[in-house]
Amino acid sequence: MVHVVRSIARPERQDLEALGEFSPATIHEAQGRRGALSSQIKPLAPGMRLCGPAVTASCHPGDNMMLIAAIAVAQSGDVLVVAGGGLTEQGGFGEVLATACKAGGLAGFVTDACVRDGSVLRSFGLPVFSAGLSIRGTVKETLGSVNHPIVIGGLNVRPGDVLVGDDDGLVLVPREEIRNAARLSRERDAKEATMMEALRNGGDVLELTGIGQKLAQKGCNFEA
Amino acid sequence: MVHVVRSIARPERQDLEALGEFSPATIHEAQGRRGALSSQIKPLAPGMRLCGPAVTASCHPGDNMMLIAAIAVAQSGDVLVVAGGGLTEQGGFGEVLATACKAGGLAGFVTDACVRDGSVLRSFGLPVFSAGLSIRGTVKETLGSVNHPIVIGGLNVRPGDVLVGDDDGLVLVPREEIRNAARLSRERDAKEATMMEALRNGGDVLELTGIGQKLAQKGCNFEA
Amino acid sequence: MVHVVRSIARPERQDLEALGEFSPATIHEAQGRRGALSSQIKPLAPGMRLCGPAVTASCHPGDNMMLIAAIAVAQSGDVLVVAGGGLTEQGGFGEVLATACKAGGLAGFVTDACVRDGSVLRSFGLPVFSAGLSIRGTVKETLGSVNHPIVIGGLNVRPGDVLVGDDDGLVLVPREEIRNAARLSRERDAKEATMMEALRNGGDVLELTGIGQKLAQKGCNFEA
Amino acid sequence: MVHVVRSIARPERQDLEALGEFSPATIHEAQGRRGALSSQIKPLAPGMRLCGPAVTASCHPGDNMMLIAAIAVAQSGDVLVVAGGGLTEQGGFGEVLATACKAGGLAGFVTDACVRDGSVLRSFGLPVFSAGLSIRGTVKETLGSVNHPIVIGGLNVRPGDVLVGDDDGLVLVPREEIRNAARLSRERDAKEATMMEALRNGGDVLELTGIGQKLAQKGCNFEA
Amino acid sequence: MVHVVRSIARPERQDLEALGEFSPATIHEAQGRRGALSSQIKPLAPGMRLCGPAVTASCHPGDNMMLIAAIAVAQSGDVLVVAGGGLTEQGGFGEVLATACKAGGLAGFVTDACVRDGSVLRSFGLPVFSAGLSIRGTVKETLGSVNHPIVIGGLNVRPGDVLVGDDDGLVLVPREEIRNAARLSRERDAKEATMMEALRNGGDVLELTGIGQKLAQKGCNFEA
Amino acid sequence: MVHVVRSIARPERQDLEALGEFSPATIHEAQGRRGALSSQIKPLAPGMRLCGPAVTASCHPGDNMMLIAAIAVAQSGDVLVVAGGGLTEQGGFGEVLATACKAGGLAGFVTDACVRDGSVLRSFGLPVFSAGLSIRGTVKETLGSVNHPIVIGGLNVRPGDVLVGDDDGLVLVPREEIRNAARLSRERDAKEATMMEALRNGGDVLELTGIGQKLAQKGCNFEA
Repeated sequence: MVHVVRSIARPERQDLEALGEFSPATIHEAQGRRGALSSQIKPLAPGMRLCGPAVTASCHPGDNMMLIAAIAVAQSGDVLVVAGGGLTEQGGFGEVLATACKAGGLAGFVTDACVRDGSVLRSFGLPVFSAGLSIRGTVKETLGSVNHPIVIGGLNVRPGDVLVGDDDGLVLVPREEIRNAARLSRERDAKEATMMEALRNGGDVLELTGIGQKLAQKGCNFEA
Repeated sequence: MVHVVRSIARPERQDLEALGEFSPATIHEAQGRRGALSSQIKPLAPGMRLCGPAVTASCHPGDNMMLIAAIAVAQSGDVLVVAGGGLTEQGGFGEVLATACKAGGLAGFVTDACVRDGSVLRSFGLPVFSAGLSIRGTVKETLGSVNHPIVIGGLNVRPGDVLVGDDDGLVLVPREEIRNAARLSRERDAKEATMMEALRNGGDVLELTGIGQKLAQKGCNFEA
Repeated sequence: MVHVVRSIARPERQDLEALGEFSPATIHEAQGRRGALSSQIKPLAPGMRLCGPAVTASCHPGDNMMLIAAIAVAQSGDVLVVAGGGLTEQGGFGEVLATACKAGGLAGFVTDACVRDGSVLRSFGLPVFSAGLSIRGTVKETLGSVNHPIVIGGLNVRPGDVLVGDDDGLVLVPREEIRNAARLSRERDAKEATMMEALRNGGDVLELTGIGQKLAQKGCNFEA
Repeated sequence: MVHVVRSIARPERQDLEALGEFSPATIHEAQGRRGALSSQIKPLAPGMRLCGPAVTASCHPGDNMMLIAAIAVAQSGDVLVVAGGGLTEQGGFGEVLATACKAGGLAGFVTDACVRDGSVLRSFGLPVFSAGLSIRGTVKETLGSVNHPIVIGGLNVRPGDVLVGDDDGLVLVPREEIRNAARLSRERDAKEATMMEALRNGGDVLELTGIGQKLAQKGCNFEA
Repeated sequence: MVHVVRSIARPERQDLEALGEFSPATIHEAQGRRGALSSQIKPLAPGMRLCGPAVTASCHPGDNMMLIAAIAVAQSGDVLVVAGGGLTEQGGFGEVLATACKAGGLAGFVTDACVRDGSVLRSFGLPVFSAGLSIRGTVKETLGSVNHPIVIGGLNVRPGDVLVGDDDGLVLVPREEIRNAARLSRERDAKEATMMEALRNGGDVLELTGIGQKLAQKGCNFEA
Repeated sequence: MVHVVRSIARPERQDLEALGEFSPATIHEAQGRRGALSSQIKPLAPGMRLCGPAVTASCHPGDNMMLIAAIAVAQSGDVLVVAGGGLTEQGGFGEVLATACKAGGLAGFVTDACVRDGSVLRSFGLPVFSAGLSIRGTVKETLGSVNHPIVIGGLNVRPGDVLVGDDDGLVLVPREEIRNAARLSRERDAKEATMMEALRNGGDVLELTGIGQKLAQKGCNFEA
């Protein structure tokens, strides 16, 4: 078995930039309400945003050895995505490893475990999404994998698939679909902008959203 | 069955203003430690405050159709209160519907589900209390109710009952009791102000709180 | 039974100051990955830090009487540590008691229950670590203990043991070990500073951390 | 305030017997998918069933005083329903109080807290529905209420409303609706019996349930 | 998009039978500690066992329409595996649909939601693994998928992959690996039988497991 | 540091036998409502009972090496108590190690993690208390401790302290207090037997429990 895969397919940079203009909530809706990671994985501070292809790692609970191996094979612009083996009370990623990620130009760090050194990482320039903060460090004893598919936040993430994150959380876009996702998101944003403009101008919410008609069809009784 | 009730009894505006001067924690204590919604329902950002009569909606899990119907019947100063059907991993309220609420002059939005577009909503001018943030949008397929009593956060909320919220969470005040609640809260705040002044001046905490006497009555042994 | 013990052994002030220079995560790692309280106990606001000997109290669920008794026996520089009887939906500590703590010069407040008056306490000058915010006040009816050993956050805390906290959470250092913990933390911080400097200069993360060699020993296969 | 209400309206015995023939799942479905208590409230042993009008009690966390007051006013055939104040790690009901319930001919006991003496209660002849088992006893210090409306398991329960329980959990039927609920349940059971007979005889599940047609209407694509 | 895939690759019957001799715990260990579904998915009754290829369905929260579509395309010996959209408080599978599954000769039913009619299903002859019991039925309104890959219990399950379950829970074996998994499980069972025989005869646990040597290598100090 | 302590103080066998006659709930109440382990730690099957001195082990998450070391130093009649490092999704104890425990005459096994081989262990003759069942095996890589004090289920357990368990859960009795605990439990059981006899004979629950008087003192209003 090859534990650490080095070469993965990444999307084109310009396609990533195009997708990165949209919020995860918009993309999720635009691609048919698919791709939401569990809301338990949150940014460390309001305002953090990321968009990039996943370099994946799978770690034994309480062990961050493969996380470090993954940093070594990640490239500038990648998002490091680490499945922590089902243990949230661990913080095997802090200032030292964040320094390594930043030196390598990574676009962000995502884990279903916790991280540590929150007071530094909040304004460090590396977007970090995690289950929270924990001071518990980890050991480096057990092999796992790098750049194999992993399950994190209730989804299957393949190396090279794209993660987009903001205050709301993270959305996964399959590598093959990012152009389409960006196009559909643009259409959706335009439609929502028009609707919000109309609402601000006193438009009727039932009419603008089409819900009035839908309620009527379903037999909704309004008090006279 | 009438799904959407339009007309509800609301308290007098001046009574709402009087009540809104007090914190939920004070009101909860003043009205005999009753009316606390679950602490899982939290403001989206520190500093958010709301006080107003509830317009209630009950939604099917993963469906926000009745939420939209409720916006249509809510009036300026109302608080929209939405029971989300037991599913927290949904964010069926975001910038578009918040725009509609703001256009209608609503005093706030409360749900036991999550919301989305957190980066916008945090400074949007509409106080939002929820179980957190989730990018998952919802469908509009299933009828529910508007302005019927609902259970949310472990309490029974009737349309027109008053919710008061701040950083600590939310308290429910039955419509008939808001004058009394404001009066009792004022007394309590005055008493606490006096006690804090005395504490700042070096007063004895056991004496000022009356706990010293109570401990003695209960047979508490202090080390000599 | 003596319910309230007054006299406890405290470490030397200069030793506390030396220890307080380090983060809980560093101390936890330095003392052999021991002493982490549950990450459910978090600071009320980013930036809060504390370091001091524990004055311990054990309260009945929904009752804060012994918490008040503990304030009365605590001294300047102490950290008040309160086990809340397994009920998180209670906020038996707010502005009034925080005023008493501040008047007494306490170094901080720690509980596995919630607290209230968050909007005040966030900038009050007293570091508060808790399970969150709840408006529910408590009664004062049932005896417990002050300055007996308690279990909180998954650890056994003896009066006079030291708690250090920051954004990441809290670490416990046994009273007898604080000099040693400070020494080991200093060594660790120095080693990490060197490593971060090397990483910023483009050093290899596998080599600097020694993980490259460890992976090889364990038979890790890298893709050629 | 009257803490303990003695006289409540109860349904007719023959109506209760008629309703008690049906399972909670059937009744829940028959009355329009309403009335399900949280699935966290489960029978102590498989096979336990109950049906009866609620005598309600609201207790302070960790306190069972009002539970005992409620036993004193309950009548033969009643179901004692106790809201435990949000604390599950308490077992304030065991063999002694179950003996009192049985002596009074009660039809069952329901709580959102835990109970104790499980090895006895499992075969004691009194159906018990709870959040589980806990050895922790309770104090008797704080007043609450008996036969006021309470919120339990996410629902508002009024004294005299009917609870029906089996292995699956509990359903609430408003007092005024039990005849109707029994009638609708009977119709539903008959329909389901017919459908199951057809399925056992090799009938097509898509046709018998009407889902085939529904899928077609919604544009579901089946692989050719 | 094809919502419902009919034709999936299934393993050979004799290979399934060979694999089905082993417990999920043995298989999990034998295939390198991979494939464990979350322990939250449990059998409805002690003694339930299943082994078969997965027919997968993805349902909207609170909706069981695709579950019924999946029954229609499943074959004798299949295990129906249903991802319930993140909502556990739903029981969209009960006696009626179990009758359809049994009529079709299915080998079992697996879901991360709850099921209902537990008192019947416990001895119905169809192994059912779920998050528990809930009386809440579901609607049939929203399209999903059948026989596409799904994430359930923290794993990615492809149609035709094999699930093996007993009292301990469920293990996933990729379709291509079941012969190898059976072979490795047989070896492991043989080794464990030998070890248990030796332990029963008074053998030394540190020596037989090899842990004594391992502890020595790692510098474990035994009290003299 | 000595990792594995061999010699611990154990209570006298006759004192253990005397204590073992009482239920954990009775002992907990008798010793002043102290010593309840979290109700999350439950027996694997109804009817399991244990009473014996604790041999303690502390394991790294996902690692059972020290558990095996603890078996090697445990003696006939001991209860093996293992803190699992905060990870419940692990089952590092199954038929093989249970065979070793049984061969050594142990009185039971307690852990805050899960165990595996439930179908065997349920009727194996060794009482097992755990967080449930999980098929996930563990590695043997990281040192911990044997016969040092541990925190488990929210309590501090010292080697030689006594655990008593039945269907309801587990109670901890400090080694020095077991005679006193047995004596108080006997008194309590006698008192309860008398009270149950009176209740069965139609005695008044408010009078027999003394609650009637207490309610009156506290100003409880009964409906006339």
